[in-house]
Amino acid sequence: MHSKFNITRPDQGLAVTLQHKIDQKTKPLGALGQLETLARKIGLIQHSLTPQLTQPQMLVFAGDHGAAKAGVSAFPQEVTWQMVENFLAGGAAINVFSRQNGMALSVVDAGVAHEFGRRPGLIDAKVAAGTASYIDEPAMTLAQCEVAIASGAEIVRGLAAGGCNVVGFGEMGIGNTASASLITHCLTGVSLAEAVGRGTGLDDAGLVRKQALLDKALSRYRATGGSDEALAVLAEFGGFEIAMMVGAMLAAAEAKMVLLIDGFIVSSAALTAAKLFPALTDYCIFCHRSAEPGHQAQLRAMQAEPLLDLGLRLGEGTGAALAYPLVRAALAFLNEMASFESAGVSEQE
Amino acid sequence: MHSKFNITRPDQGLAVTLQHKIDQKTKPLGALGQLETLARKIGLIQHSLTPQLTQPQMLVFAGDHGAAKAGVSAFPQEVTWQMVENFLAGGAAINVFSRQNGMALSVVDAGVAHEFGRRPGLIDAKVAAGTASYIDEPAMTLAQCEVAIASGAEIVRGLAAGGCNVVGFGEMGIGNTASASLITHCLTGVSLAEAVGRGTGLDDAGLVRKQALLDKALSRYRATGGSDEALAVLAEFGGFEIAMMVGAMLAAAEAKMVLLIDGFIVSSAALTAAKLFPALTDYCIFCHRSAEPGHQAQLRAMQAEPLLDLGLRLGEGTGAALAYPLVRAALAFLNEMASFESAGVSEQE
Repeated sequence: MHSKFNITRPDQGLAVTLQHKIDQKTKPLGALGQLETLARKIGLIQHSLTPQLTQPQMLVFAGDHGAAKAGVSAFPQEVTWQMVENFLAGGAAINVFSRQNGMALSVVDAGVAHEFGRRPGLIDAKVAAGTASYIDEPAMTLAQCEVAIASGAEIVRGLAAGGCNVVGFGEMGIGNTASASLITHCLTGVSLAEAVGRGTGLDDAGLVRKQALLDKALSRYRATGGSDEALAVLAEFGGFEIAMMVGAMLAAAEAKMVLLIDGFIVSSAALTAAKLFPALTDYCIFCHRSAEPGHQAQLRAMQAEPLLDLGLRLGEGTGAALAYPLVRAALAFLNEMASFESAGVSEQE
Repeated sequence: MHSKFNITRPDQGLAVTLQHKIDQKTKPLGALGQLETLARKIGLIQHSLTPQLTQPQMLVFAGDHGAAKAGVSAFPQEVTWQMVENFLAGGAAINVFSRQNGMALSVVDAGVAHEFGRRPGLIDAKVAAGTASYIDEPAMTLAQCEVAIASGAEIVRGLAAGGCNVVGFGEMGIGNTASASLITHCLTGVSLAEAVGRGTGLDDAGLVRKQALLDKALSRYRATGGSDEALAVLAEFGGFEIAMMVGAMLAAAEAKMVLLIDGFIVSSAALTAAKLFPALTDYCIFCHRSAEPGHQAQLRAMQAEPLLDLGLRLGEGTGAALAYPLVRAALAFLNEMASFESAGVSEQE
């Protein structure tokens, strides 16, 4: 697995020159805050003083979860395929925000329990019709996990070959906040209680039931000698959409693309990928702080400071699509703003 | 003064229907967080279930401050007119972000100590060539303050007549964070120390000097019997650009436009306008949380929850321009997203 990806930290050679260029812009030092951090980060990723974002692509990975039938979600499992249909028809939030912000959108069937046939805008990479329920057994085999990772990587390599250098990650899968909670617990060490939230809208009783089910799943895994090794955890609890995102992210970082990371579920994939290749986060832009409590633990573990904090808890990649104009703004100021010298403006005294 | 504006709370008649429309979208209840609040707010302002933003306009009000020569800023006073030239040439941050996000930009000379002549993109509304120094005397006369307010209102009424219904507020004026600090102290009651920050980049010694100068100005004002009445405070410490924004904001609220409020200085105008007409804030979208400490007191006083928190401290309206895509996104989801029924998606169980 490790041998399949070659991910190194971005070359830091331009760091000083980039900072100088930023500091010469007609503004007080540091006055653009996190946008300056972003401009530096993307300049280093692209090893360029004039970085550009080309053919921005949103990928929404969808998959079903065996555990969903046990009651870890407020919505019935068929909502996964119904929402995929909604994506394909252009009516979901991620369609609206991607359109608004000029991002192409593709939906990836990583493992939905439904046959869609060949459809425009849908990439068929189905590993199986949903995972097994991790309450009773591993969600997937290690072989399935490897297939999902390889498929995700292949999709992104295709995008990179076509000229795309910025990819947003989104997901759909009824029950996948539960998966993300288990992964977050195992990979960050926070308590399971701290990593579990209401997902798409569980009430108090639903939250208690979800916690009990996840406790049971975790006990079973520990009883079989289950470790905290990233790939083992991913196969045990992951959805196919999460595993496929791990592969897609690793391929994107390898290709020195800019990765737009959405909320709690996408961050569970980023966390897994970063455990395998710590340099991954150098290519990630953390787009928003989710209202889901476990997201805070993920962000701490990856030392990430997200761009938006709007109380979003929708998933689909919506936080990534909404933050994309800020990413563009960071490069726009770096590339288009005048310098003190070019504008004839006096500098700080 | 009060008789010149007619500002009432938006009609709340559509509140329930708007909420129902939002709740029927294909997403968990409340999952779009602050964007849902925004959609409701703008729907009420426009009294419409399908609100639209038309001819978005950024207005950057510029003025000079007599107190700037005393040393309340890290930059020399001539930077005000130099930056106006930078705006007119298209090279400043606000130009870059307005262009990116499809907002027209006009610069208003509210009182810069420089003759620009007739220039495309510049509105000449100069009250005088800079204010007097409030360290020694009132910054402007009440008559000048009224002229500034009337001019600001006239500019916005012209925009409204031309079909604009969303206006962003920005400013430029070396020394104007000092004005904003004095206004914030008087109108919110926080201590002057809490309202004073580093502005565009004062060092420790500069900050101590600024605080001492503002203490002196405040003592002089109090010794003359100066009150905390909003217009008196505005005339005493305001810049012409701040007073003109007050008039522009009041006219915008009267015309039921959406007001995009930037950071610390623009919020000092909003605070003043809201003291005169409390319904003003019902038309305001607070776009970002400035790194300037006094901004927190302003936001508390107006019970405002801003959209962005990126450590920005540039002014010019940059926070408003950067947040504008989020405002558009709020209406896009309200107008374009499918409902559970139209998309054939099962609802929460």
